[in-house]
Amino acid sequence: MKDQSTTTEQIIKQVVITWTSRNKAFSDFFYKYPDQEYLKEVAPGRNRAIYLLGHLIATNDAMIPLFGLGEKLFPEVEVFSGNPDRSFEINASVQELKTKWESLNTVLTTHFSKMTINDWLEKHTAVSTEDFAKDPLRNKLNVLLSRTNHQSYHLGQLNLLSVKELVA
Amino acid sequence: MKDQSTTTEQIIKQVVITWTSRNKAFSDFFYKYPDQEYLKEVAPGRNRAIYLLGHLIATNDAMIPLFGLGEKLFPEVEVFSGNPDRSFEINASVQELKTKWESLNTVLTTHFSKMTINDWLEKHTAVSTEDFAKDPLRNKLNVLLSRTNHQSYHLGQLNLLSVKELVA
Repeated sequence: MKDQSTTTEQIIKQVVITWTSRNKAFSDFFYKYPDQEYLKEVAPGRNRAIYLLGHLIATNDAMIPLFGLGEKLFPEVEVFSGNPDRSFEINASVQELKTKWESLNTVLTTHFSKMTINDWLEKHTAVSTEDFAKDPLRNKLNVLLSRTNHQSYHLGQLNLLSVKELVA
Repeated sequence: MKDQSTTTEQIIKQVVITWTSRNKAFSDFFYKYPDQEYLKEVAPGRNRAIYLLGHLIATNDAMIPLFGLGEKLFPEVEVFSGNPDRSFEINASVQELKTKWESLNTVLTTHFSKMTINDWLEKHTAVSTEDFAKDPLRNKLNVLLSRTNHQSYHLGQLNLLSVKELVA
């Protein structure tokens, strides 16, 4: 049996790998079709794919201050977080959002690679010291687990997008 | 700082709690509406909700043999795993599938509560000893992380189901 510290590191690595894999699946989706396809809604009357891209940028970007790692990279995308699609005008192209998504992923990957076991088990900045003492599971690892599932949730919806197959 | 063994247990607990929470969200969805609503498709031409319920039972049930914990509880539901909706006849009612779903969750919860750190880090039964030696991340914890995201993926789709609001 391995020593416990190595075991803990391995488990955290697995959680981070799961994040990375779901993140990559989301990225891959936005490289499958011509940009204009992402202006469509995933189902009648539901969110447009471009909205979901902005929504994921906003949600994931919020991890930076939540982990005490600095300011959000793209505060202008914040509007996608608490507001439904069509309640505001999307002032960015699919290409512009894709560029932000990729930059954000690079920054998050760098941060995550430097985080120690203790960093992951520390409280995030949205929980008070008192509340964290009562529930030590409200840590950064929990945020990552939750955000990983959030990516999967919306990827399931994106994969319903009806795209006419391109004929060569 | 806690000792490493406690830390490892806490992290595994967090992963299991994330599973449980996504599992409960899936269950809750199937108690929101009258049964006949689940016979509808989540988007035009896409999977029906009843199919997705069967699909999740089949996928989650397969964890029992994959974890070396015994035989599948519901081999008759296996057909939902590798076959698309409408390629076979669904010979069960929503209520029957919900009953199986709940029984399966009870059994899985009991198994998970008894599993030790070492159990979670052991290879699952679908990977050979040689392959596991090359990639020790192909363990049971990895299966659970993946199945948790699989629940979230399909829950995102289920939440697109159009249900007429009931008027009292």
